[in-house]
Amino acid sequence: MSLVIVGTVAFDSIKTPSGKADRVVGGAASYIALAASHFVREQELISVIGEDFPDEFLSVLKSRGVNMNGLVTIEGGKSFFWEGSYHEDLIGRDTVTTELNVLEGWVPVVPENSKSAKYVMLGNLDPSVQMSVLDQISTRPDLVVLDTMNFWMDIAMESLKKVISKVDVLMINEEEARQLTGLKTLPLVAAAVHKMGPKTVVIKKGEHGAIMFEEGKTFFSPAMPLEKVVDPTGAGDTFAGGFIGYLARLGDTSWEAKKQAVVVGSVLASFTCEDFGTKRLQTLNESEWHSRMRQLRAMVKFRSIRG
Amino acid sequence: MSLVIVGTVAFDSIKTPSGKADRVVGGAASYIALAASHFVREQELISVIGEDFPDEFLSVLKSRGVNMNGLVTIEGGKSFFWEGSYHEDLIGRDTVTTELNVLEGWVPVVPENSKSAKYVMLGNLDPSVQMSVLDQISTRPDLVVLDTMNFWMDIAMESLKKVISKVDVLMINEEEARQLTGLKTLPLVAAAVHKMGPKTVVIKKGEHGAIMFEEGKTFFSPAMPLEKVVDPTGAGDTFAGGFIGYLARLGDTSWEAKKQAVVVGSVLASFTCEDFGTKRLQTLNESEWHSRMRQLRAMVKFRSIRG
Repeated sequence: MSLVIVGTVAFDSIKTPSGKADRVVGGAASYIALAASHFVREQELISVIGEDFPDEFLSVLKSRGVNMNGLVTIEGGKSFFWEGSYHEDLIGRDTVTTELNVLEGWVPVVPENSKSAKYVMLGNLDPSVQMSVLDQISTRPDLVVLDTMNFWMDIAMESLKKVISKVDVLMINEEEARQLTGLKTLPLVAAAVHKMGPKTVVIKKGEHGAIMFEEGKTFFSPAMPLEKVVDPTGAGDTFAGGFIGYLARLGDTSWEAKKQAVVVGSVLASFTCEDFGTKRLQTLNESEWHSRMRQLRAMVKFRSIRG
Repeated sequence: MSLVIVGTVAFDSIKTPSGKADRVVGGAASYIALAASHFVREQELISVIGEDFPDEFLSVLKSRGVNMNGLVTIEGGKSFFWEGSYHEDLIGRDTVTTELNVLEGWVPVVPENSKSAKYVMLGNLDPSVQMSVLDQISTRPDLVVLDTMNFWMDIAMESLKKVISKVDVLMINEEEARQLTGLKTLPLVAAAVHKMGPKTVVIKKGEHGAIMFEEGKTFFSPAMPLEKVVDPTGAGDTFAGGFIGYLARLGDTSWEAKKQAVVVGSVLASFTCEDFGTKRLQTLNESEWHSRMRQLRAMVKFRSIRG
């Protein structure tokens, strides 16, 4: 398997100004796998669920080439559950409930035929679980991408810094990047992250786009302007899945390929925001994302400035 | 005179996390004129100052081709004064003092030889003053650009809407655009503004760049990522001055030219943020802004996405 991803597969209850969704399928790995499945035919999903998890969604993943040997179902266990409520601006959100359930004490196992994976996506999760997955990869992958969030900085900073030091690309949102480094402006933040290990830093700015730094080079992609944002949950995970899925498909980790991957991630994330949960990502077809890629390209294109 | 600008010429006292500046030259028209002077050899400045205003700055403007026939000095009067203090994030700011002084009761007079101006920049100011300037332009200009802020929405919404209905380009920041239209997402905001009159809407997003909408087309320019932001005062006015100055120089109001003008505005604004007041805009030279234009261009360039 050339792409291995780890992350949560879970239930989310979500309230946004557009309405609410009760116990829909969510979790970082669900979004990552669905997004990546638009680019790769096969991938390995490392995660854990309870007996309460719907077979229907697992069938969707299977039909999209997601291998299930690394997905553990805990007998009698309950799947990870998150309940959150978004503010009017769709940026701030309050966590109402977090039930770790089967995540507690789970030790991930990477299936034998995925230990030589070339592309590894460490989705947002306990950094010690991310580290454990990385430790089981026996040959140096072409690219390891890590996504994380402030929660882990608050309770497991040392463990997080350890796994960050081992990855090629850190993907993180703007405020969290500032929290991680204690710095304000993004060029300084990026320089500080480089010193922690990652050659590449991708800072997700939500509706304001994404910016990537690598060895003195900078790339920026706007987010697609949407008339209506229904639910931003999973947009960052979708971005990550589109990013690594596209690179795994190309088998290319050059700067030029990564720039395209940031655009792919931005475009896919815009679809996720159009409906609750993973719905839109499941109905999305190739001509739709192709069309939006072209729109985004046109949106930033301009002729050379005349002196 | 092919470019006429109206706006305040004033003193600002500014406090930011980087330090403070007492009674430095500021005001929308000062930034607009300086920014535009990088592109046009001549422009007409319509404004009002008190006897307290330094000749030195007026000499700077004159040396850059700014005509002074529309700049009134009120004998014994005091110049407009604003004092503000920026929050840690450099976005929020508190106004400590606003002294209108000579602005009160001022009626702008457009000099005869500027009444046929092709490019008119209505800088942030009382909308009735903006309207008065526009009324004095006898032939239809090629382009009228209006910049405004929430203050005028709060106290003079009807007067503001009247002048908005007469202009080609509305330039406004993100939060203010939402306040003006009562809508949340930028595509909806832009559609509502089009209905108010302007064919083109430029929404300034500060450190997140600028987005322009016109007849179903969208263009986005990132802001230049800066390692250090000293003082964002005047960045929006600088953007406006760069935008209209560049178009006036080309004598072109096409979509392609406006896209370049948004980039020019973004780049010039980034320099303004590097020091207090108009300092950086005065020392800025052509090779510096050319170099930053090239950087910005490289920052958004990517190869077509392969299917």
